[in-house]
Amino acid sequence: MPVGTQGSVKAISPDELWQTGAEIILSNTYHLYLRPGHTLIESLGGLHRFMGWNGPILTDSGGFQVYSLARLRRISEEGVVFQSHLDGSRHFIGPEQAMDIQRALGSDIAMAFDECVSYPAEYEYVEQSVQLTSRWAERCRDHMKSTDQALFGIVQGGVYRDLREKSVRDLVPLGFDGYALGGLAVGEDRDTRLRVIREAIQMLPDDKPVYLMGVGAPEDLVESVALGVDMFDCVMPTRNARNGTLFTDRGRMTIKNARYSDDERPVDEQCDCYTCTHFSRAYLRHLFLARELLAYRLNTIHNLRYYARLMTGLRDAIKHARLDAFKKAFYEMQAEGMKESSSTIE
Amino acid sequence: MPVGTQGSVKAISPDELWQTGAEIILSNTYHLYLRPGHTLIESLGGLHRFMGWNGPILTDSGGFQVYSLARLRRISEEGVVFQSHLDGSRHFIGPEQAMDIQRALGSDIAMAFDECVSYPAEYEYVEQSVQLTSRWAERCRDHMKSTDQALFGIVQGGVYRDLREKSVRDLVPLGFDGYALGGLAVGEDRDTRLRVIREAIQMLPDDKPVYLMGVGAPEDLVESVALGVDMFDCVMPTRNARNGTLFTDRGRMTIKNARYSDDERPVDEQCDCYTCTHFSRAYLRHLFLARELLAYRLNTIHNLRYYARLMTGLRDAIKHARLDAFKKAFYEMQAEGMKESSSTIE
Repeated sequence: MPVGTQGSVKAISPDELWQTGAEIILSNTYHLYLRPGHTLIESLGGLHRFMGWNGPILTDSGGFQVYSLARLRRISEEGVVFQSHLDGSRHFIGPEQAMDIQRALGSDIAMAFDECVSYPAEYEYVEQSVQLTSRWAERCRDHMKSTDQALFGIVQGGVYRDLREKSVRDLVPLGFDGYALGGLAVGEDRDTRLRVIREAIQMLPDDKPVYLMGVGAPEDLVESVALGVDMFDCVMPTRNARNGTLFTDRGRMTIKNARYSDDERPVDEQCDCYTCTHFSRAYLRHLFLARELLAYRLNTIHNLRYYARLMTGLRDAIKHARLDAFKKAFYEMQAEGMKESSSTIE
Repeated sequence: MPVGTQGSVKAISPDELWQTGAEIILSNTYHLYLRPGHTLIESLGGLHRFMGWNGPILTDSGGFQVYSLARLRRISEEGVVFQSHLDGSRHFIGPEQAMDIQRALGSDIAMAFDECVSYPAEYEYVEQSVQLTSRWAERCRDHMKSTDQALFGIVQGGVYRDLREKSVRDLVPLGFDGYALGGLAVGEDRDTRLRVIREAIQMLPDDKPVYLMGVGAPEDLVESVALGVDMFDCVMPTRNARNGTLFTDRGRMTIKNARYSDDERPVDEQCDCYTCTHFSRAYLRHLFLARELLAYRLNTIHNLRYYARLMTGLRDAIKHARLDAFKKAFYEMQAEGMKESSSTIE
């Protein structure tokens, strides 16, 4: 899921987003609650209509942003008191408010309100946090009266196997429409992350989608899909695009590098995106160095298309039972790309 | 002509530019000479191919930017020595260099290299400057060997009738493909500007296009077309768009105003642009306040479409000999719009 934090996937329009192959996007409850406000969006017909995106939208619960962006947070059984990062105004969001806001936004998938524990965290703290998140999840489930909005629960528990297990055992009986793995990609090493994903997925029901939150790099997607993850959201393709890093089958390209100054080739000759079918690396480099707004857009279109093609490739591979071959080819291409770039003087 | 200073009309793509109805754009020789360099662009097949714009391009001579942006300028008979505003590097551009650079860029219309005098300026200074510009114009004409590139001369002379006349008399015998009026919209009052335009056009040949450089506001276009001007370039539609000012038949709209916060209507109900057919004022206001990149693009598309429609309207009015009626309706609509906005509490 491309991330449209403030009701816009940064730098591109809804029709371009659709053309990249995106089938669902994520929008941030915390940001839209603060600006322009969920009641305003509701009065204008909901988020889809407001932003002109007709595909599905998943809204996060606002929890993660409250912990990572807002100031003066005070967590209690009821919920979280915080100050807006925009103007310092005080707000309260608890499970019921998170549901009300997401219902007003009218997303297709809402997320239960959870506590995100920072990493590393003591076992005792994570244990209490998992219990709170479970109680909040139940309140979310109880409060969610809308019938056309799916609700996902969020499995927490840090890197502790038994706490993840407790979280799963608390949530599954509540009957969510899908389950997210939260509190990952927050600083733990890669092997630990993959271990936690593997363990959690084994405990979760087979017939519900599993959503790994805030992940990730192309190789993270490949590994996690192989473990059974169905959905992801990450700012990586869009944010990297705006920083001038482009994803290709042969690894990452730093478009400002001098080696591209007179390079007439597209970013990726295999890519069918608008950027690759219309513009040269030389032009993209020029736009980026000149800080032209078009640079951010063209880079974003390419990166999102790369991610969409990667996911399509993974789905096809699963369908035709050749995921191992896909993974092998993926890593071989990346390694080849690395060899090429290290053999070229920049 | 929308302005594409650095090989991109800011915030939009070439296909969007085309869809706004733009039939020719202006690009800045000075900027492209400095970055990415005219020889690089030439080696990549010229500016059209580099930026993906298949319509005509007019390049300015670089003169105006050298005087307004570059530092440490020293003007001599030969040309101008200056320092780059980007990195302080020293450069020389004279008439021959200006022609060579524009030929390398491959524009459809090149401009003769001129001296732009700041306003106000003493008669004696302007007189000498007109003479220098005339000598430079002849050198440009002599140097221009390319047969498929049109060359326009630039009439200077400040606000002085006899100096404008001298400039015209010097230039016309050189047989340019069109004539630009330079040194206007630099601080002189509106009546003076219209007087200079009227006088100059009466002296210029009827069968060549007249291009008023760096102008202007919608009302300037209406008045100048009525006086016989054929072409304009101005950053006003694009720059205003990025500052949140939108043009409509009923005047200018400051999109960040609170009155638009829940306004479901398009910017202009009469407008057929992508922005007006897809998004509400409320959404555009939100995007602008949230500093989303999409804001600059959607605003730019609308403003360029407004300008293109205004010019189409003016051409149709001339064709059907009802320019006076068009002007009258134009001013009535603007006045009505002003009445409306002053009667609304913002």
